[in-house]
Amino acid sequence: MSVHLAKGVRDYLPEQMRGRHAVMATVRAVFDRFGFEPLDTPAFERLDTLTGKYGDEGDKLMFRILQRGEGGEAGLADQALRYDLTVPLARFVAMHPELRLPFKRWQMAPVWRAERAQRGRFREFYQCDADIVGTTSPMADAECLAVASTAITELGFPDHVVRLNDRRILRAMARAVGAHDHELPLLIAVDKLDKIGRDGVSAEVRRLGLDDDAIARLWQILDVPRGHADTLDALAVHLDDEGRAGVDTLREVLRIAFALGVAPERLQVDPTLARGLDYYTGPVFETVLPGRNMGSVSGGGRYDGLVGMFCGRQIPCVGVSIGIERLLVLLEEEGRLEVASTAADVLVTVHDDDHRDAALAAVAALRAAGVRAEVFLDDKKLKAQLKYANARGYRWVAFVGPEEAAAGQVTLKDFAAGKQVTVPLHEAASVIGME
Amino acid sequence: MSVHLAKGVRDYLPEQMRGRHAVMATVRAVFDRFGFEPLDTPAFERLDTLTGKYGDEGDKLMFRILQRGEGGEAGLADQALRYDLTVPLARFVAMHPELRLPFKRWQMAPVWRAERAQRGRFREFYQCDADIVGTTSPMADAECLAVASTAITELGFPDHVVRLNDRRILRAMARAVGAHDHELPLLIAVDKLDKIGRDGVSAEVRRLGLDDDAIARLWQILDVPRGHADTLDALAVHLDDEGRAGVDTLREVLRIAFALGVAPERLQVDPTLARGLDYYTGPVFETVLPGRNMGSVSGGGRYDGLVGMFCGRQIPCVGVSIGIERLLVLLEEEGRLEVASTAADVLVTVHDDDHRDAALAAVAALRAAGVRAEVFLDDKKLKAQLKYANARGYRWVAFVGPEEAAAGQVTLKDFAAGKQVTVPLHEAASVIGME
Repeated sequence: MSVHLAKGVRDYLPEQMRGRHAVMATVRAVFDRFGFEPLDTPAFERLDTLTGKYGDEGDKLMFRILQRGEGGEAGLADQALRYDLTVPLARFVAMHPELRLPFKRWQMAPVWRAERAQRGRFREFYQCDADIVGTTSPMADAECLAVASTAITELGFPDHVVRLNDRRILRAMARAVGAHDHELPLLIAVDKLDKIGRDGVSAEVRRLGLDDDAIARLWQILDVPRGHADTLDALAVHLDDEGRAGVDTLREVLRIAFALGVAPERLQVDPTLARGLDYYTGPVFETVLPGRNMGSVSGGGRYDGLVGMFCGRQIPCVGVSIGIERLLVLLEEEGRLEVASTAADVLVTVHDDDHRDAALAAVAALRAAGVRAEVFLDDKKLKAQLKYANARGYRWVAFVGPEEAAAGQVTLKDFAAGKQVTVPLHEAASVIGME
Repeated sequence: MSVHLAKGVRDYLPEQMRGRHAVMATVRAVFDRFGFEPLDTPAFERLDTLTGKYGDEGDKLMFRILQRGEGGEAGLADQALRYDLTVPLARFVAMHPELRLPFKRWQMAPVWRAERAQRGRFREFYQCDADIVGTTSPMADAECLAVASTAITELGFPDHVVRLNDRRILRAMARAVGAHDHELPLLIAVDKLDKIGRDGVSAEVRRLGLDDDAIARLWQILDVPRGHADTLDALAVHLDDEGRAGVDTLREVLRIAFALGVAPERLQVDPTLARGLDYYTGPVFETVLPGRNMGSVSGGGRYDGLVGMFCGRQIPCVGVSIGIERLLVLLEEEGRLEVASTAADVLVTVHDDDHRDAALAAVAALRAAGVRAEVFLDDKKLKAQLKYANARGYRWVAFVGPEEAAAGQVTLKDFAAGKQVTVPLHEAASVIGME
């Protein structure tokens, strides 16, 4: 007999779950304070809802689901597990014309991608998104930047940098170097700068047909020093009207983000930032943690065309996704996931069968008073019960022997302080709570 | 262009999400107090992990998933979405021999079943389970009863009844009426008593080959008055050794549950209770709400053979599932889902472009002080901004005009009280919090 998980997925054990819950609660509280509303969508969508939105790679990596039970027959896979939370949101918005706009929603939920299995890459992982639907205002873009920056700060990473660019700048750059027919491959090459270096990018764009002159012009643009308004001024020189519209938008986004309290050193205009997904149309951004060997820990941008792919109306959207899986890895590696590491505060022991009911009454009273209390379930000697409490790391053990039972009392032993005290049952919770 | 959800699934809108979060938080707090630990498992499992555990119906209703992207080709569906949370738990336990037992875990997560689409029945719904792994002690069964009873009480349904039976009693009953070869169909017929009535059950068991005598004997057993020890005494008379072992276990479970503080009127031994799932081996139970037109709102039982189907070791388990979807329907129908119904506490208006930064500083200060604050995103007149705040049902609106901006103040209008006040920015949060 053998037993396995499906390929590329994992169980989340209690200690991991406690960390996950803590991180999600922190992010959720930030989303709430920013006025985002919770929304959830089903795990699977119609196949035609998902395909054609992410590019070829995304279409290939979707998990397709067979119709009701039949299994195996060709052509019956007309549904697929969601690949991200953005396309389902766009589908939702298209289906709800009555929605009052702007609509700000958050969603934290798993998505599924049939990635080749490898260490640290999973086929099921959580996304954690905040999006604003129904306005082209750069205030919405800045709100998304700010909510991500605040959440990442409150998770313990104040030293992050949000890199910022605009798809219109990238498109204008492609035109400026004569690569308007190869815009997407050009952006993909530029996006890999961190991975393949300058020579790698130059080689890739040369394969797209760019000559030495064009490549030199490309680097002239990409080498503009990272910064704020100065960077935008330097970029504008090289770009056409559409590119300059992107520059103007970013100028506004920066100003608003600063007014919202995002510190200047947290923001950086970066013309090499492309972001992979097909559906972005305006500002794009991602958050990196300098000095840590980890990719971006949030990413997002404006996608004004996506809802229109589902209905006649064009409804502008902008959103951000916070990489809680990566942040969890960092917090765990750095020993900074501070959460209750035990299942309970106290183990109530069972003295013997005659005093079992008294022990049960004690555990019920402790629970009713809000204490996390466990009662020893098996018929074992007191020594084995103490060993269990110790192995589980419980701080407190409660005894209800013949004397305690007769007097309505309980003896509480504090492993941390090495002391014990006998008190009336109704005072037990406050003793445990007080220490 | 048309846009649809997949068949039989639904979106969860913000108001529904707030209700769901509130209910889940209540249940989770109860699980925590009882010393259950959180665990999560992946949405999909290997097909061979899931099949053959739920009976034919379950196997038919599993959503099968195709391997990586290929789509359509026969025979490649080697994974399936989980059908419940119990079989994945058993698979997890089998894979983790190092687990310290007893292990008490809770899990709240969606499951998927390809049910025929009909009103009020969904193909994706949440299950909410607490299980105890690794002990045959009736204390574990009673803990599961008690945790469900406590959670259902705290959700606002103190007037519930937990019906209780034992699979061994049911099997002994089948033998007592000479139907040991038709045990499962007999139990299925008995389980339908509420739906098809006495005559319906009699007709069904007659089709299984029971004669008048056997049917009379069946009713003699099933008609034992519902109660506690008295019911068990009356049942014992009709049953063989295995049946009486079931009776003895239930006697213990009742005694322990009472000692844990479950009120006697909440518990009822009921020989007609069968529970459908194949894997139960000992006590089974479910919770009903008398006077409400809704099926059971929790169900569970002991399944000592399931882990052994995955590994050589037999590891006893007992668990309970709380029907939060049904409880949510009732709470909503009865207008008892009391949750914040707005996205934010306050809308910060934007006076004009010159004072936008001051408005943004105000919204940032309010959020930093823990207030749920939204800033108006579009470039519109004040009247439109007020209309938006009203339509969204926000109690407070904040203004930062030229005078407020110059003085570092903000004017807060309280729609509920019909008053307004101008205060320094750093006092704004406490005004909103105080009222």
